[in-house]
Amino acid sequence: MRIVLDAMGGDYAPPVAVEGAVMAAREFGIEVVLVGREDEVRTELAKHDTSGLKLPIVHASQVIEMQEHPAAAVKAKPDSSMVVGMKMLRRGEADAFVSAGNSGGVLAAALFHLGRIKGIKRPALSTIYPFFDKEKKAASYCFLIDVGANAECKPENLLQFALMGHVYAEKILGIENPRIGLLSNGEEETKGTVVVQEAHQLLKQSGLNFIGNVEGKDIPMGMADVVVTDGFTGNVVVKLSEGLAMALFSFLKVEIEKRPLATLGALLARPAFKAMAKVLDYREYGGGALLGVDGVVIIAHGRSDAIAIKNAIRVARKAVETRMIEAIKQGLEELLPSIPGKGA
Amino acid sequence: MRIVLDAMGGDYAPPVAVEGAVMAAREFGIEVVLVGREDEVRTELAKHDTSGLKLPIVHASQVIEMQEHPAAAVKAKPDSSMVVGMKMLRRGEADAFVSAGNSGGVLAAALFHLGRIKGIKRPALSTIYPFFDKEKKAASYCFLIDVGANAECKPENLLQFALMGHVYAEKILGIENPRIGLLSNGEEETKGTVVVQEAHQLLKQSGLNFIGNVEGKDIPMGMADVVVTDGFTGNVVVKLSEGLAMALFSFLKVEIEKRPLATLGALLARPAFKAMAKVLDYREYGGGALLGVDGVVIIAHGRSDAIAIKNAIRVARKAVETRMIEAIKQGLEELLPSIPGKGA
Repeated sequence: MRIVLDAMGGDYAPPVAVEGAVMAAREFGIEVVLVGREDEVRTELAKHDTSGLKLPIVHASQVIEMQEHPAAAVKAKPDSSMVVGMKMLRRGEADAFVSAGNSGGVLAAALFHLGRIKGIKRPALSTIYPFFDKEKKAASYCFLIDVGANAECKPENLLQFALMGHVYAEKILGIENPRIGLLSNGEEETKGTVVVQEAHQLLKQSGLNFIGNVEGKDIPMGMADVVVTDGFTGNVVVKLSEGLAMALFSFLKVEIEKRPLATLGALLARPAFKAMAKVLDYREYGGGALLGVDGVVIIAHGRSDAIAIKNAIRVARKAVETRMIEAIKQGLEELLPSIPGKGA
Repeated sequence: MRIVLDAMGGDYAPPVAVEGAVMAAREFGIEVVLVGREDEVRTELAKHDTSGLKLPIVHASQVIEMQEHPAAAVKAKPDSSMVVGMKMLRRGEADAFVSAGNSGGVLAAALFHLGRIKGIKRPALSTIYPFFDKEKKAASYCFLIDVGANAECKPENLLQFALMGHVYAEKILGIENPRIGLLSNGEEETKGTVVVQEAHQLLKQSGLNFIGNVEGKDIPMGMADVVVTDGFTGNVVVKLSEGLAMALFSFLKVEIEKRPLATLGALLARPAFKAMAKVLDYREYGGGALLGVDGVVIIAHGRSDAIAIKNAIRVARKAVETRMIEAIKQGLEELLPSIPGKGA
């Protein structure tokens, strides 16, 4: 297996990207192709013990920066690490592409150079949302799609996201017949925007394990294995959750520090806090899959450290191993014979 | 001052509503009119010491239940506590209306029997979102509008919500020239749905203290005093926040209980947890104002207890005292001379 890593992508690239690639190559025994400015990548690589590891470098002279307009940057920079890497995937020279760079840029590069899966009109960005399973008293994971690729969606887009979420949850997360929920502002099928109401009807007829609308509170409560929403709302959900968790714990910290006994108590309770922090740590999940493009593309958090990069490569490897793309294609044929706009 | 309370509204009405009214009448020295089934309300009232308090009962034979379709129920039940109470407000027999009942029902009753403020096309539901102010190391409050009245919005609706939020934040929360943020999936003005992008442009020209787009994470971080969004997204934000806070603390509790030392530690840290829980407690904020209708209408949480009802009455009193409705009307004239659709 050969996975392409955008060595220039992310807030701390290339050092952190290269370090993550070294970790992944060693731990998973796979080849990780580092695409980026050869001299910079080589300098970073020299800092690590890479004996016996497959870590070839493919030179790409340009970099798409975080603040650039995605589509324009992808067109203007044909020798960027994103475009060069995506083209390798297209030509079958690699099995997956991983980047912690400008996510709009990855989306645009994938659309231009990889193309969509036939039948999927709009690719979507997904993420793993950790939650606490009250019954099992253990951490569990919800799959959230779309979290930012499409601010505006049509009902059939949401249906297609649900199908892709179903396949991902089964193949990658190992959840049999995952419960699919549609995010809305109420449980009743009459709730939501017109698009959400129409999507509800399509999902009811889809043959998927559709459990109906879910509300905001149901996501962290784990009411659904897959939560389907548009990229605007999904983005708000993910960022709000990050911000709220941080705000709650900084708040708690200040209240604890005001009180000497509570400070001692928090010290004693520290392992419990750490156990929870580990579950909430985005680095554990290895970034989100860009689903609907014709190849395995994983987008890691811009703030990724080496562990996050390594885990993103792990997710990519699993998607290749489980033949995720083929499963989505097959799912489109089997599950949704009368899916609107399928011929697109 | 005379405030009408829907004595039949809420999951625990009438007992809890009546108890909250008694507390409010005593603490604030105001008249609270209890509208509902006279015999039931009288039975509840008899359980309390009401000597010297002004707590008249106005009989209403019907009740709009939580699960009923709002508009249909309001039409079918002209003698419901909501309709009877709202008509009192309309006729000038009361200064404000408070209910913990079906919020869609309150909205429909207000639209039918109270009408909109001239220039406001769509009323909106608001809420207080507590957050932790890192700089001041203290709890603070963000005003969120709309949290459920309008799943679908036009740009001018969002502009009008911003204006109403501005007035509410100044008058009720005492924040001078409040910072207004527009919720989107990115900071740049090109981010968001078409509606959000157009609203951004209207807000830039509004004369309000518009700080631009805010993201999900910015709400609990307190980046804006007023966050403007549509009722679909706002509803998801509020319910997700409730669910996530609950999930995080049940998670932490389980991790603590697994460990004897951590259990002892948590006991010592308890006052810190309690201080935070108080700030997060929705009962402290007394429910959200329904803004844009021509009268003071406060909707309390369906799960309200007596303290929450009392605090909702407190909010209503402050809105009357500060002449909030007049301030919104004046704001419409002064701040937005060229507001689109103002003549509606």
